[in-house]
Amino acid sequence: MQWSTTMTKKQALLALCLALGLSASAQAELRKFEMTIEEVDLQVAPNLAVKVWAYNGQVPGPLIHVKEGDEVEVLLHNNTTLSHTIHWHGVYQTNSWQSDGVPNVTQEAIEPGDSYTYRFIADKPGSLWYHCHVNVAEHVALRGMWGPLIVDPKEPTALEKTVTKDAVLMFSGWNSEVAQEYGKGGHPKEVSDYFSINGKSFPDTQPIRVKKGDVLRLRLFAPTSPTAFHLHGHDALVTHKDGLPLDKPYAVDVLPMMPGERYDLIVEMNNPGIWMTHDHIEHHTANAGKDHTGSMLVVEYEDIEKPDYYMWKDKQFDPDFYWIESMKKPHGLHENPAFKGFDPSQPPPATASKTMHHGK
Amino acid sequence: MQWSTTMTKKQALLALCLALGLSASAQAELRKFEMTIEEVDLQVAPNLAVKVWAYNGQVPGPLIHVKEGDEVEVLLHNNTTLSHTIHWHGVYQTNSWQSDGVPNVTQEAIEPGDSYTYRFIADKPGSLWYHCHVNVAEHVALRGMWGPLIVDPKEPTALEKTVTKDAVLMFSGWNSEVAQEYGKGGHPKEVSDYFSINGKSFPDTQPIRVKKGDVLRLRLFAPTSPTAFHLHGHDALVTHKDGLPLDKPYAVDVLPMMPGERYDLIVEMNNPGIWMTHDHIEHHTANAGKDHTGSMLVVEYEDIEKPDYYMWKDKQFDPDFYWIESMKKPHGLHENPAFKGFDPSQPPPATASKTMHHGK
Amino acid sequence: MQWSTTMTKKQALLALCLALGLSASAQAELRKFEMTIEEVDLQVAPNLAVKVWAYNGQVPGPLIHVKEGDEVEVLLHNNTTLSHTIHWHGVYQTNSWQSDGVPNVTQEAIEPGDSYTYRFIADKPGSLWYHCHVNVAEHVALRGMWGPLIVDPKEPTALEKTVTKDAVLMFSGWNSEVAQEYGKGGHPKEVSDYFSINGKSFPDTQPIRVKKGDVLRLRLFAPTSPTAFHLHGHDALVTHKDGLPLDKPYAVDVLPMMPGERYDLIVEMNNPGIWMTHDHIEHHTANAGKDHTGSMLVVEYEDIEKPDYYMWKDKQFDPDFYWIESMKKPHGLHENPAFKGFDPSQPPPATASKTMHHGK
Repeated sequence: MQWSTTMTKKQALLALCLALGLSASAQAELRKFEMTIEEVDLQVAPNLAVKVWAYNGQVPGPLIHVKEGDEVEVLLHNNTTLSHTIHWHGVYQTNSWQSDGVPNVTQEAIEPGDSYTYRFIADKPGSLWYHCHVNVAEHVALRGMWGPLIVDPKEPTALEKTVTKDAVLMFSGWNSEVAQEYGKGGHPKEVSDYFSINGKSFPDTQPIRVKKGDVLRLRLFAPTSPTAFHLHGHDALVTHKDGLPLDKPYAVDVLPMMPGERYDLIVEMNNPGIWMTHDHIEHHTANAGKDHTGSMLVVEYEDIEKPDYYMWKDKQFDPDFYWIESMKKPHGLHENPAFKGFDPSQPPPATASKTMHHGK
Repeated sequence: MQWSTTMTKKQALLALCLALGLSASAQAELRKFEMTIEEVDLQVAPNLAVKVWAYNGQVPGPLIHVKEGDEVEVLLHNNTTLSHTIHWHGVYQTNSWQSDGVPNVTQEAIEPGDSYTYRFIADKPGSLWYHCHVNVAEHVALRGMWGPLIVDPKEPTALEKTVTKDAVLMFSGWNSEVAQEYGKGGHPKEVSDYFSINGKSFPDTQPIRVKKGDVLRLRLFAPTSPTAFHLHGHDALVTHKDGLPLDKPYAVDVLPMMPGERYDLIVEMNNPGIWMTHDHIEHHTANAGKDHTGSMLVVEYEDIEKPDYYMWKDKQFDPDFYWIESMKKPHGLHENPAFKGFDPSQPPPATASKTMHHGK
Repeated sequence: MQWSTTMTKKQALLALCLALGLSASAQAELRKFEMTIEEVDLQVAPNLAVKVWAYNGQVPGPLIHVKEGDEVEVLLHNNTTLSHTIHWHGVYQTNSWQSDGVPNVTQEAIEPGDSYTYRFIADKPGSLWYHCHVNVAEHVALRGMWGPLIVDPKEPTALEKTVTKDAVLMFSGWNSEVAQEYGKGGHPKEVSDYFSINGKSFPDTQPIRVKKGDVLRLRLFAPTSPTAFHLHGHDALVTHKDGLPLDKPYAVDVLPMMPGERYDLIVEMNNPGIWMTHDHIEHHTANAGKDHTGSMLVVEYEDIEKPDYYMWKDKQFDPDFYWIESMKKPHGLHENPAFKGFDPSQPPPATASKTMHHGK
């Protein structure tokens, strides 16, 4: 197999480099992960369960957090009934184009029940992501086959070094009409009618909690839908586009994104209050026509007393919903129980929305 | 009520600052405005009247033009049958997050017949705007609840100082299917079919008239629809995004915008002629399929003789349709008769289109 | 006729300038072209023929490649049954606004059987384009009335001088429902369901072939559809927007475009492999719901051995599909046989797709 041959050459080169003390970085490590793809249902909104193909059973897929220069090896098992791949969006795949994940171009798609090993150097730092490259109009756009790949740079910018909280937000749309039938959907005339952040719709998203003085980095991902991100009460400095640092960061109060793009925003949390944060494309805050749903969250300052009219006053708080806790942990693969799907043949799970107080 | 308490604290602080001669600016003033929300019909196109909730009975709402540092107080009366708010998009609301206008988050929505007072410092200069934050997929996207808030900076950039004409253009879409029934519309599968600038569709928009040597600032707002603004015959310098000056202005002949964004463009009017100016999203220039309508206008140089084939040769001219005249007036709240809605129980008003010559 | 009078004045001025040795550039030349508009069918995809109005019988229209300062004269014959014009998008039309191509504003539309002469100085360098300005929601968005106008700058940037391969990619959408009936289509509620690059859908697009060390310029045009261009395995430097060089080029792995925009990307081809390249708007890679079609191509490095699973392994190669060969030729108007339409009253032509090997 051609691909193994290439790997062998690369491994030989790597061995040679190591022998000569020429490794790209003294800290470069081999990161070996094992992942699956599962058929589960995802509770996107109280009235919307979606049949997804979920990396490690969750949507978004697990956070993969490594360092620039690390060698990454991912053994992927396809436990579903259709073929899939992983494209590592943003990775250059230098000398490893056969790990790029495009069916019939860089590999054969991984058949149901089969496994496949991806190997590459994390040669581009920043906010990357991964997603299936088979039939993307269904697998990516409708079935949740995407997750974050964060590669810490060897040389972070001065701005990056000031960050105290690092959050990952993946915006996506869903189509309730085809949600419950695998193999349907993806026609260009279809229109999304549900919207989510990290797989959940407001009010089942979570607040981001900060304290005055925090420097919040928002890593925004638009896997499937155009998005116009708006944070109230603050300007955000756009510091990175597609993982790449901008020479001249610029400030915005609305940040537009098209599918595939990523932007890093750095925000000085200097304005205590409770601040709505949402997609400014109006339809994306009205799941199936229901107002005040979809692609929304709230940024809460810790010392602000929550008024009685605040709809999330008594909300049960999950501090890792935006991977803020996971991003503080050692490098590795981080699953997140909040994003797990469920087995649709079992009784439906309790939804998070039941635990919250609706102010309205 | 918690909010009044906070206001009281802020007022105390302000009083203290004033007593100590520490006001943010020698020129800072208290600007008190009174506004209403009315149920009227808006004549968007000759064959499209839309039931809107109109700030002061007009769409766009009145121009609010103040200076950076001014204290703004707006007493708002809800004269409609549903609840509303105002979000002041772009204002930081430092120490006044309860004036941010988000229902069930920063305030309770203003019930029909009720009034509410917003108080804040105009702490961010530039091209801001205001809009309702209740059920935005209907109130903002379909019912005209938006208007411009222009805050002059204490320290304008060198480029800004060269401006001789200051124009405000708000681009929006409409949906004829739900236009005549309040409470309908906002489902994500709906698609806009009429398009307007400052609430009117071409050919019922107005030209912008300039003379050679003018420096025209175009303040572009996209409250509801993606827009790809194209001015023929000139490049435009993009100087501000969301009210914020860019370190490095850049030139464009097409300027894309997503909902919520604002861009300031500065154009040297150095190319006499008659220049079409339009949204380059083709559907936005074809109301319900009728060509040469929607989101279009013409920039006319004064000394150019209008040819007989020019469809607007004899058009009755309204010099304030883009608030160019109002922007020259003292700071304050500026209504605009051209944007007023009408009482649908009365006979329909004459439309502006009757006064123009159709070249085709 | 007013327009002829103006032309006469300009010609007099030009003659005077020439007599005084004051021509804008020693190399400025008069470029005279003759073009037609034809009614033909375009084979966009194996199962989609579209009735188009084709400049010189092809979609995209012929490449017009001139130098900054050249005087361009285009005699256009309308051989169709409806009226049309040409707008030269990006040309300033200094002293020639009547050649701007807007019906009922800068000229009367060219009636069926009539001819018209456009004359202007190529006074703006860069990636420009031309398109009809009559009923653009049908003529441009659905009937293929667009082509590239490349104006070489007098003073190219240092980056531009490094380019070894210059490619032109025009992205567009189509609507199969109205494809076979002229005069239908353009309503804002319609949605495109086929997508193409230079008028062809994958797998009937072509690869771009490069060798390591090449510096590839991608001139991206979005005549009709939003596009989110993604090249695997490389970052691309955005060097020009709408033909205008950026002070600070920035790197991307996804480049968003709205209709009317053009971006020049310069890419160092330093990563041998076979790289998928596509619109990241998922619907644009699923013609009528069929996966792995539409707005896609592959960038192939010459020395890479093509694996058996590669779907384009034995593809018949057309080196000028992106005008790479034409861009090396002397200035002028370059037709391209690959883009020609066909006479629908004749037997259908063989499609390119028949000559390729489908790996799947």
